Amino acid sequence: MIVSILGGTGEQGPGMALRWARAGVDIIIGSRQQARAETVAAELNQELGQTRIRGMANAEAAAAADVVALTVPFSAHRSTLESVQGQLQGKVLIDVCVPLDPENPRKMLMPPAGSATEEAQELLGSSVKVVAAFQNVSAHELRELDHAIDCDVLICGNDREARQTVMGLVEQMGMHPIDAGLAFNARVIESLTALLIGLNIRHKVKGSGVRITGLP
Amino acid sequence: MIVSILGGTGEQGPGMALRWARAGVDIIIGSRQQARAETVAAELNQELGQTRIRGMANAEAAAAADVVALTVPFSAHRSTLESVQGQLQGKVLIDVCVPLDPENPRKMLMPPAGSATEEAQELLGSSVKVVAAFQNVSAHELRELDHAIDCDVLICGNDREARQTVMGLVEQMGMHPIDAGLAFNARVIESLTALLIGLNIRHKVKGSGVRITGLP
Repeated sequence: MIVSILGGTGEQGPGMALRWARAGVDIIIGSRQQARAETVAAELNQELGQTRIRGMANAEAAAAADVVALTVPFSAHRSTLESVQGQLQGKVLIDVCVPLDPENPRKMLMPPAGSATEEAQELLGSSVKVVAAFQNVSAHELRELDHAIDCDVLICGNDREARQTVMGLVEQMGMHPIDAGLAFNARVIESLTALLIGLNIRHKVKGSGVRITGLP
Repeated sequence: MIVSILGGTGEQGPGMALRWARAGVDIIIGSRQQARAETVAAELNQELGQTRIRGMANAEAAAAADVVALTVPFSAHRSTLESVQGQLQGKVLIDVCVPLDPENPRKMLMPPAGSATEEAQELLGSSVKVVAAFQNVSAHELRELDHAIDCDVLICGNDREARQTVMGLVEQMGMHPIDAGLAFNARVIESLTALLIGLNIRHKVKGSGVRITGLP
């Protein structure tokens, strides 16, 4: 399987790329600038001592992938999706974006659709299967390859099979996925990120996370 | 200290009353009907083999307490607060209410103020210190006195000292409080309840909860 990470040169992308590539998933880092994507891919390959990560411009990265993850800041959410809409048809899109208030990342903006994930699904139409995941996983923790991440990955989206695909990818990263049901739950999952950022600031840490208790 | 639990004959109240009374906190169960409150208080005292729990009408319960907890359904949130506004002056109000959609408790209503907690603070004015707590703790788990509850208690509110008071009361119940900062965070804490209810339904359990990881 090939997973492309659009906006993959940012905060969340490199850690995700490294953990998937280490598990044998072929990764393409996507960026608005192809050269930037290639540079980051080369650095990550060097860190892993392998060549499983490539860099491409976002549209080519989306075209070449089986599954596409979107990790751009929310300000670039809609424009990035519009620029790769054709390449996403028939695919699973993992939306990692969180509509944080740029003035105060402890607070959420409220997208008219309810959440970034619902906005993506509305924009892309039903032939793209949008799944929310990884919003609550600290970028800092993802990047620290030498230790396990103490955070569950809450998954939601309107297509059950697509959720299953993403849960498999979460497990390949060594993390525990939890199926949280339909896409409207993204409102909660995304906003939990703002609360965790607030806790990071208040408690002077970089990697607070969440575990769900009491499930079978 | 005397804690009154308004709407305390409902789902959440009896478990909270039992756990606090067991720890030595004097409890008043409040209800719209005094007789109903007295009956439930007597049943709970019998279960504990003590007499630390009393029953009163909501207004008398609020007047007699140092700290007041509100556990009514969201449909009665505003009307209950209006009926005891005078008795709450100068006190800490623990708001446990969650604005769930009565048609689908996996979904949230969006109160104009942003959350039940913010609505309560707006309505009551600054001489009442409103603190959100206990929304994510399963009523079923609270009522099962023989085992510990595997769920953190996220606390927020605009008054730091009031948050400290509530954190102490959470600890007396044998649970772990987490200071999540100002009242706007109640939007996240309350909505997390809807997600947990969805997980309970999906996974056929009664007591999913949440733990925050990565804090000192």
